[in-house]
Amino acid sequence: MTYQKETLEELIERMETYLAEKKYVDARKTLLDIEPIDIAYIMETLPEDTIPIVFRLLPKELAAEVFVELDTDSQEDLIKGFSKQELKEVIDELYLDDTVDIIEEMPANVVKRILAASDPESRKTINTILQYPEDSTGSIMTTEYIDLKRFNTVSDAFKRIRRVGQDMETISVMYVVDADRHLVGFMTIRDLLLAEEDETVGEIMDTNIISAATLDDQEETARKFEKYDFLAMPVVDSENRLVGIVTIDDALDVLVEETTEDIERMAAITPSYKPYLKTGIFETVWSRIPWLLLLMVSATFTGQIISSFEDALAAVTILTAYIPMLMDTGGNAGSQASVTIIRGISLDEISLKDIIKVIWKEIRVAVIIGCILAVCNFAKLMLIDKGLFHNPITVQVALVICMTLVVTVFAAKLVGCSLPILAKAIGFDPAVMASPFITTIVDAISLLIYFRFAQMLLKL
Amino acid sequence: MTYQKETLEELIERMETYLAEKKYVDARKTLLDIEPIDIAYIMETLPEDTIPIVFRLLPKELAAEVFVELDTDSQEDLIKGFSKQELKEVIDELYLDDTVDIIEEMPANVVKRILAASDPESRKTINTILQYPEDSTGSIMTTEYIDLKRFNTVSDAFKRIRRVGQDMETISVMYVVDADRHLVGFMTIRDLLLAEEDETVGEIMDTNIISAATLDDQEETARKFEKYDFLAMPVVDSENRLVGIVTIDDALDVLVEETTEDIERMAAITPSYKPYLKTGIFETVWSRIPWLLLLMVSATFTGQIISSFEDALAAVTILTAYIPMLMDTGGNAGSQASVTIIRGISLDEISLKDIIKVIWKEIRVAVIIGCILAVCNFAKLMLIDKGLFHNPITVQVALVICMTLVVTVFAAKLVGCSLPILAKAIGFDPAVMASPFITTIVDAISLLIYFRFAQMLLKL
Repeated sequence: MTYQKETLEELIERMETYLAEKKYVDARKTLLDIEPIDIAYIMETLPEDTIPIVFRLLPKELAAEVFVELDTDSQEDLIKGFSKQELKEVIDELYLDDTVDIIEEMPANVVKRILAASDPESRKTINTILQYPEDSTGSIMTTEYIDLKRFNTVSDAFKRIRRVGQDMETISVMYVVDADRHLVGFMTIRDLLLAEEDETVGEIMDTNIISAATLDDQEETARKFEKYDFLAMPVVDSENRLVGIVTIDDALDVLVEETTEDIERMAAITPSYKPYLKTGIFETVWSRIPWLLLLMVSATFTGQIISSFEDALAAVTILTAYIPMLMDTGGNAGSQASVTIIRGISLDEISLKDIIKVIWKEIRVAVIIGCILAVCNFAKLMLIDKGLFHNPITVQVALVICMTLVVTVFAAKLVGCSLPILAKAIGFDPAVMASPFITTIVDAISLLIYFRFAQMLLKL
Repeated sequence: MTYQKETLEELIERMETYLAEKKYVDARKTLLDIEPIDIAYIMETLPEDTIPIVFRLLPKELAAEVFVELDTDSQEDLIKGFSKQELKEVIDELYLDDTVDIIEEMPANVVKRILAASDPESRKTINTILQYPEDSTGSIMTTEYIDLKRFNTVSDAFKRIRRVGQDMETISVMYVVDADRHLVGFMTIRDLLLAEEDETVGEIMDTNIISAATLDDQEETARKFEKYDFLAMPVVDSENRLVGIVTIDDALDVLVEETTEDIERMAAITPSYKPYLKTGIFETVWSRIPWLLLLMVSATFTGQIISSFEDALAAVTILTAYIPMLMDTGGNAGSQASVTIIRGISLDEISLKDIIKVIWKEIRVAVIIGCILAVCNFAKLMLIDKGLFHNPITVQVALVICMTLVVTVFAAKLVGCSLPILAKAIGFDPAVMASPFITTIVDAISLLIYFRFAQMLLKL
């Protein structure tokens, strides 16, 4: 059967009917045709008390796959309801890196139960992975991969895949280690299939290895998947001993999560790592209010600048009307530059060594954009604002506004392009240097310039 | 040999020396240990006239892999310098979807040469793929996959992989079609390896297929990879006939590209699909200026609002000083909401049916945030602005500012959360409804409220 997202709602209705009528055989049969992540969605949508019932309908292996996809609350509820034996069965079926992910979200008493249900060897591995820092490559790796020795033959390798392949996270790539577990090569399943039965692993392996270290930043490792089109990547310790692998699905999750983090930081939000609709009101408030407060208080400077030029504004009141336009244009121009640079840094296209190139480019872009905007604005001021709306605009006033526009765009682009690179250089997240932060700085600059030009040209 | 990015600069130096001293054997030996994308980077960094020399040092297969990774200009130069035979050799080695990608970027005369160098069957396929719309799944698919029939045995399948596996983009997943090429199932290489030699494909295949249609949006298809952890996905035509597959590496590229597009749109930039440092000055200007102009002109409204309340501002001049703070806070509060919602829509976490839930959540968040900001601001106004800076602030003025703050945050969150969803509902890209656009609307709203409160409380 082929199903697509549109029919999920229908599946839920069918499941509801089956469960209400206690037609468990039909319910089970329906579930067998569905992808684990969609079963998880269906379970979370059905009434809460049916979750354990539906879960127990699933065959062991599928049950484990569904368990991984459930949200943390449902996982916790299920674990609390499991018998010792049930929990052990689920844990045995899970890949180790998934077990680690689940443990990281659970309260201490549930963690204890999970660890007690794991076999001693897994428990040891889980504890090792748990000790890697949160954003490190070690924390997203799995230890379930196929390793081979140089002297293994191709048919040895196939035997090994047939014996342990079911429990490995991937069989697309296999890794070759020496007696001390140093990583010496790798081979793909394709290499293996295209080789002769009696060739040795040492003969066909690729020794040109690109690996990650356990303490490498997880985003850096994930970007390598994108760059090199890997399906898996070996992770080594400081002595080049193979300790695990990262698979493409986990790398992809990291990329999506890190990008969301960037986007949220750019919009002055503290990242929450939770889907919007599952985040509580107070969590949302908390992720937003510190930034709003900070930015609100820093607007004190712009306020003081305006206060100190009160007399100028009182003399030529029309100047006030153009403050919003100047501030918004500055903010927008600055955020165009900063957001472009922040994304470029994320994608590894721009680094500190490019700062001169970047600044030189933005200067030229700023001059062209500033001049075009100024000319258009001058025309608009004289034709529409003066001609149509009869605002009291003289040529001098229009000049003050347009000259300020040019300098504002220039300052905005310069601040916007350099701050993210400098932030990166001193170890901050460049994403914080996006629009809101830059707007505050550019606001102050553009007001100072505005009043300076007004004083010069209007003799205030 | 293991190498990492840090040593690329050293590799370039070594290559420069080899080329200068015409030590081509050493140069070739060095290149053999390097990943194709890094060789491409090295070639682009070396003097331009050495590109063809280095390219000809590479063995055929590696040369093709490097060719794909080169930038469009270098590809074009190389093709122009190739003999007919050389071009044919490179094209033969390329995967069809890569050939299509290259053709899409080339001028007409180069396209003609490429098509002439392809064998007739490939030419036909290329022309078919070229006809799919730019953002469709058809445009990113490849036709080089392994297909099997139900009655094939496992050992037939292995024979087939050994025969054609080298030319296929992936052997991780194989697809099963009936006599009319309808897609009836799939199996992974793992399924095959764990099965018995004499089992048939029909017995071990998985019939629970999730496929994409040729005209599906490429981002939608790519998101399915993320959701379901696929390595490849079949693409079918309107009659469920298998016409191609999409592989994870291409899906990943689409996700990164579409995310960059979203981020650029959110910052009021027209997406360019080129790395920042490779985009020309005028291209950059052109991607930014239409939005700045549009937003500048729409600021006319805010200007007119201020003009029409000129008398009020002249009477209580201190009101002007708080316009920037109110506008910025409104803009920031709105962009927090809109950016969160836009990302949620992209990640398929939020859709039109959630609009009531979203608005209700944002209303509650806005009330809490608005009140906290207002209280903090009131304290700041009385203690710092009045107490420290001796601004002429009365309790009434402070009330006007703080009440405006509450209503502004409320309006900003409401506009910010609903506009992206509505944009999506009527078929626009929600990303356009981000900060700059919302700022303009919220500016006008907050100024109108500000002056209304001022008139009421200050009896102007």
